[in-house]
Amino acid sequence: MAGAVSSKGCQKIRGSQIRDLLDAKRYVLFDCDGVIWNGETAVPGAPEVVSLLKQQGKGVFFVTNNCTRPRENYVQKFSRLGFNDVVQEEIFSSAYCSAVYLRDVAKVQGKVFVIGGNGVYKELRDAGVPFVEEETDVAGGSIYDCPLDSEVRAVLVGYDEKFTFLKLAKACCYLRNAECLFLATDPDPWHPLRGGRVTPGSGSLTAALETATERKATVIGKPSRFMFECIASQFGVDPAQSLMIGDRLETDILFGANCGLDTMLTLTGVSQMDEAEGYKDSDAPDKKDFVPDYVVDTIADFLQAQGED
Amino acid sequence: MAGAVSSKGCQKIRGSQIRDLLDAKRYVLFDCDGVIWNGETAVPGAPEVVSLLKQQGKGVFFVTNNCTRPRENYVQKFSRLGFNDVVQEEIFSSAYCSAVYLRDVAKVQGKVFVIGGNGVYKELRDAGVPFVEEETDVAGGSIYDCPLDSEVRAVLVGYDEKFTFLKLAKACCYLRNAECLFLATDPDPWHPLRGGRVTPGSGSLTAALETATERKATVIGKPSRFMFECIASQFGVDPAQSLMIGDRLETDILFGANCGLDTMLTLTGVSQMDEAEGYKDSDAPDKKDFVPDYVVDTIADFLQAQGED
Repeated sequence: MAGAVSSKGCQKIRGSQIRDLLDAKRYVLFDCDGVIWNGETAVPGAPEVVSLLKQQGKGVFFVTNNCTRPRENYVQKFSRLGFNDVVQEEIFSSAYCSAVYLRDVAKVQGKVFVIGGNGVYKELRDAGVPFVEEETDVAGGSIYDCPLDSEVRAVLVGYDEKFTFLKLAKACCYLRNAECLFLATDPDPWHPLRGGRVTPGSGSLTAALETATERKATVIGKPSRFMFECIASQFGVDPAQSLMIGDRLETDILFGANCGLDTMLTLTGVSQMDEAEGYKDSDAPDKKDFVPDYVVDTIADFLQAQGED
Repeated sequence: MAGAVSSKGCQKIRGSQIRDLLDAKRYVLFDCDGVIWNGETAVPGAPEVVSLLKQQGKGVFFVTNNCTRPRENYVQKFSRLGFNDVVQEEIFSSAYCSAVYLRDVAKVQGKVFVIGGNGVYKELRDAGVPFVEEETDVAGGSIYDCPLDSEVRAVLVGYDEKFTFLKLAKACCYLRNAECLFLATDPDPWHPLRGGRVTPGSGSLTAALETATERKATVIGKPSRFMFECIASQFGVDPAQSLMIGDRLETDILFGANCGLDTMLTLTGVSQMDEAEGYKDSDAPDKKDFVPDYVVDTIADFLQAQGED
């Protein structure tokens, strides 16, 4: 069986095709990095696109696996990069959604032990979810004799540049209790840094803990469905009227497919057209959810689309 | 297809059966913890068993995944626990075998970046394998700006209570180079501590790095074959004349099976008879290598066996 035949997927659209698609949608979900900005630089035209969609009365949401910042820092970043009408309630980070999950879904009865940074701690605090205060001095402690908090009922793992063996070992001890929840903010294995360097992602730290505990974490971030459920429950969003726009096939596009959304790949980030075509032409059935419905060079093409007939 | 039928495996032996088996073997390989000692206590009779086998002219070897001590510390432990005739050359730890692998098999041309403790560093030094000196103060460094050593050609991961995010991130950067070897001392996921606590094993730290690098480590320790190849190359050991004795089915017994050795489970450690029988009765073909050929309550039964006719 050579060469799957499919007429759907990877449709490169422009002009009136983009306009017709957007006319049919009431909600637009954006991934952030690689879609509306790259690091500290806005994708040219992206601020105007966001403003335009909002002026048209659409619901606009930002869905990011990045758990390092609290949402208020995102609001500041949006403003700094020229996005002047984005509010905190439109931002769904994996740190915020993890806090919501613990409070509203798991209804955790006890404290959360955190492997993570400021973004995670702040969102937990804002959500009123109790957690073990981050130790500022663990130099003297060891897993043989350190205190363990008997009120811990969940372990939450995110990106943590202060990750240590002792944190990992404590989390292992807490997770010996089968009643203790095991959550991860996101599955990202690594992130690129400047100069060819890389840094391990939340998924890497989670893998250490999964191996040591012989348990699997519940993952909150994309491509898991929960971040969309979080948006849907707060804003009554209908999947059929929603478009997910992202730059990573294995994360954003799969997330959209998992949630029943139309999906659009933008080529300003990680994944490129040949990878999308490769998944489309693949015989493997589990690859079809990586294929975006639509492709644009950049979301700035949305602006041009409005001027055409 | 219910209930696999097998006449081989899990044979509980005693007295003359043990004697006949030992008479047929020239080499005896022991796992350490759970077999000849438990922590700091010798299994009663174990020192006498080791002495007896050596008096009978057999080659006796100790094969341990524990990478925390250099072999000279093992010699001291043997002596402290009443084993008076064990020499360093008979001890094959995953740290020692990793150093041998890097020097003699991989013939690494450059430095080794180590995630591990004193056992690993000492064995590398003794083997003359160059490595990046362990930083004693990394508090100020970050993966964004820390120095990286351009001579690194291998990353070796073992148990490391001083494991940090920065070590993990540095290892990720080194492993971006596809020419850089990726080795793990052993696959052990976790280890029990006193009071119901646990500590993450080398396998846990390796999993973090495997996820972040999207590469698989070459694992030196049991159940991989390399530790036996190491013994065989130094002592000309014939698998058919060798018996592997261990307390863990998934590690020691699988190791013996992988190396073509007869295997014996001793019940003074982790695995028990019902687990061995469970694997024997399993329909799954990949479980048959977990089934020991022979089972004894304790290796002290070897002593009794000598007195019987």
